[in-house]
Amino acid sequence: MAAQPEDQFKNVISHAKEYGFVFQSSEIYDGLSAVYDYGQNGALLKNNLKEYWWRSMVQLHENIVGIDSAIFMHPSVWKASGHVDAFNDPMIDNKDSKKRYRADVLIEDHMEKINQKADKEVAKAAKRFGESFDEAMFRKTNPRVLKYVDQVDAIRTRFVKALEENDLADLKQLIEDEGITCPISGSKNWTEVRQFNLMFGTKLGSVAEDASDLYLRPETAQGIFVNFLNVQKTGRMKIPFGIAQIGKAFRNEIVARQFIFRMREFEQMEMQFFVRPGEEMKWYEYWKEHRMKWHKLLGLGEDNYRFHDHDKLAHYANAAADIEFNFPFGFKELEGIHSRTDFDLGRHQEMSGKKLQYFDPEINKNYVPYVVETSVGLDRLFLGTLATAYTEETLEDGSTRTVLRLPLPLAPIKAAILPLLRKDGLPELAREIFNDLKFDFQVQYDEKDAIGKRYRRQDAVGTPLCITVDHDSLEDKTVTIRHRDSMEQERVSIDSLNQRLRELVSMETLLKKL
Amino acid sequence: MAAQPEDQFKNVISHAKEYGFVFQSSEIYDGLSAVYDYGQNGALLKNNLKEYWWRSMVQLHENIVGIDSAIFMHPSVWKASGHVDAFNDPMIDNKDSKKRYRADVLIEDHMEKINQKADKEVAKAAKRFGESFDEAMFRKTNPRVLKYVDQVDAIRTRFVKALEENDLADLKQLIEDEGITCPISGSKNWTEVRQFNLMFGTKLGSVAEDASDLYLRPETAQGIFVNFLNVQKTGRMKIPFGIAQIGKAFRNEIVARQFIFRMREFEQMEMQFFVRPGEEMKWYEYWKEHRMKWHKLLGLGEDNYRFHDHDKLAHYANAAADIEFNFPFGFKELEGIHSRTDFDLGRHQEMSGKKLQYFDPEINKNYVPYVVETSVGLDRLFLGTLATAYTEETLEDGSTRTVLRLPLPLAPIKAAILPLLRKDGLPELAREIFNDLKFDFQVQYDEKDAIGKRYRRQDAVGTPLCITVDHDSLEDKTVTIRHRDSMEQERVSIDSLNQRLRELVSMETLLKKL
Repeated sequence: MAAQPEDQFKNVISHAKEYGFVFQSSEIYDGLSAVYDYGQNGALLKNNLKEYWWRSMVQLHENIVGIDSAIFMHPSVWKASGHVDAFNDPMIDNKDSKKRYRADVLIEDHMEKINQKADKEVAKAAKRFGESFDEAMFRKTNPRVLKYVDQVDAIRTRFVKALEENDLADLKQLIEDEGITCPISGSKNWTEVRQFNLMFGTKLGSVAEDASDLYLRPETAQGIFVNFLNVQKTGRMKIPFGIAQIGKAFRNEIVARQFIFRMREFEQMEMQFFVRPGEEMKWYEYWKEHRMKWHKLLGLGEDNYRFHDHDKLAHYANAAADIEFNFPFGFKELEGIHSRTDFDLGRHQEMSGKKLQYFDPEINKNYVPYVVETSVGLDRLFLGTLATAYTEETLEDGSTRTVLRLPLPLAPIKAAILPLLRKDGLPELAREIFNDLKFDFQVQYDEKDAIGKRYRRQDAVGTPLCITVDHDSLEDKTVTIRHRDSMEQERVSIDSLNQRLRELVSMETLLKKL
Repeated sequence: MAAQPEDQFKNVISHAKEYGFVFQSSEIYDGLSAVYDYGQNGALLKNNLKEYWWRSMVQLHENIVGIDSAIFMHPSVWKASGHVDAFNDPMIDNKDSKKRYRADVLIEDHMEKINQKADKEVAKAAKRFGESFDEAMFRKTNPRVLKYVDQVDAIRTRFVKALEENDLADLKQLIEDEGITCPISGSKNWTEVRQFNLMFGTKLGSVAEDASDLYLRPETAQGIFVNFLNVQKTGRMKIPFGIAQIGKAFRNEIVARQFIFRMREFEQMEMQFFVRPGEEMKWYEYWKEHRMKWHKLLGLGEDNYRFHDHDKLAHYANAAADIEFNFPFGFKELEGIHSRTDFDLGRHQEMSGKKLQYFDPEINKNYVPYVVETSVGLDRLFLGTLATAYTEETLEDGSTRTVLRLPLPLAPIKAAILPLLRKDGLPELAREIFNDLKFDFQVQYDEKDAIGKRYRRQDAVGTPLCITVDHDSLEDKTVTIRHRDSMEQERVSIDSLNQRLRELVSMETLLKKL
């Protein structure tokens, strides 16, 4: 019954809407591109992901503290960080359609089209010779195929060179030489390629002539760097120590896509770990391992994760790796671990004129600390979790069910309390149980429809436990717990429910495995 | 030892910085006006306030669910809500200083100055006749005083009329007639009075010619209204029901002041309760009482709260009240409870062309629900809590201490684990206790300095419990718990610590009183 990846992804997106996980933003106004809202179940799942991260960082680590810095920051911050000058995409406009495109995406799409032509030739050959596609591909000596392959290779070589040398004129020339047309107007009437900054701008303040140009932060990390000294001093922190933060960031992505994977407004969970210069590689390795362990503990499948070490490093880094996750559209970045050196603190020290140094009593020296960063996209984590948990199953009796196999402590609703019937005092007892559990757990009371239908409803939002109150419950003060994944049922006393839920679905159970 | 309110407020602000609660944003760049960051202790206190609100709303109420909608919304939302046309302040520029002012604030400050002159005359008279200020005020027949009083009355009458009629020309005329000068240039060289919209604007998207003008949301409520139908249908909600949300909002305040009381970037906790038309007053009264109870449960003093019923109602409301709190600068709005009628849903229905109605099976009718809103400013709640908790005490031995008497479940650190000495195995046992408690509670280990100094440090950040490990602990497996407020000490077994903390400082203890 396993659906194809593309279908699976479509199913996940429509399930996310149908069950109150993710809605298109401003949907009644036909939506806002690449912006989404989290619904009643999505908000709970998102909160639980935040809690898992925050508690694992701030509560379990003696030497990590959390902050909550504002989205608005002084414009000099983004000058110092390099975002004003270097956070750009190369853009080109078509003069006829007035549409703007990312020049690199136009070229990539063009190469992809040529690849598809080659594939078509291979498929034709496979059919003709009665081979499999892979066999035919292996023997692709067909001159028509070879022509396409050579063509793509030539484009790629020139493309990579132009990007590396930031040669905007040659990007334009490449688009012209290849005869790339605008998908809307079909014309080749292009402007020059220009750099387009990805930060959203706004204007702050009261004074007409000198209202400040502000940016919405494109990353939360700088809020940590500018507070480094305040936190270190008031928190009496000793190196090595970390500062963690969860918060919104904004990027004016030209091509935003893949549902909540790449949004213009998104949420990051970042931790900057300040270390003695020269010890950064030790901590870089430590945090790579630790973060991978954190992800795998969710139980979404060890094979769904892999490291991708960067060959080409950003200007601020001396080592960098991604933790990639197997999304419905393939392995993509979920989290980045970066050894950022003293680039950021050094730049802020230079621009602000304030010393951002630490006196290390062990070596009796002042220095600008080095930084190892872990940065996870909360919305991507949400998407990966939801998509992997989404399962369509055929049961023994031939019927099907859709179940979200969410990690138990992340489930929006931890348990549903269900009176078997709406009479004979069963609802009253069920409500009593609900009112007792609700202080410690997010639980739900549901008395509508047949019990089987109610089970399915809870399966669809990933509720790990259904607690059913029946006539025996009135007599012997026991209830049935039905488990989401195994669909097995057990009989337990009402008195033991709180403790049982604590063992099965509380965040502590997950944290204790770290 | 009680400080004067103004001094108290200054002390609170410097304490907030010194102990990692609130830092000025981008401080190393000399700050960004009216924007603040929460430090390592502030972030925890803020998270705890959010948790208290969220769990009391979403977890304890069967018929309230939470969402998390984006800051970016379709621009039509703000047209429909009235913010594009009516969310303005009247502004005037001085042509010499190039400074912009709120016209109403200039006039209010001017009236205040005249009042101060009158007070001075009263004080002079009091001195001359050997009376108290109040006595002299009571007899203020002094013609010089009367002149000032009459002058202010005349200005106020004209001022209120101009505001009510939105007569910008007369506001300008009033400023000219009164000879109000620019505080910077001292000149009377004013521009016309114009309306200035308080929303921050930005531009979204990729297309040069038709990039969308977006706004940063000035309130979170609209994110709930536009999702009303999605939540109601996918959550199978029955009226009456509520949708709750915590999130950032932004207002380009011209005169932002009083620390974190009025910021340009701030956080709201809003709940919109959807009811049958005609039943809104019942629910309005219900939520007024319920929200007041929620606040008072924090134990910051019943006298620090009062209702302020609005005489003048906003265009969308048929009843409105504030819960005011006694801030260091007097009673000010902390939370608003508003009966918003069907204004917002009605407007969105009209603008979007989508039916935003509910079929009520009990009365067999379709209608646009009425809405009762509760809206609390999270930063204000933070400020009120911190300022009221801040206490300077003289102890019996004549020494002083500064203690944050925070409500126990809100304290950033729930308990500090302190080995009496840094030897004899005491640190090892203390760390064992720390490692046991850290999964369930935010705790701290501290072994530096004499025990008395460590107690003071924990007092200053509001830690309710200090757990001291001494030589007896090694023998009998007991420790001393020292209580923050009473400074009393008790001896308890290490085994019972988890349960004891749960009883004393967990959020559940607070929620169970609701």
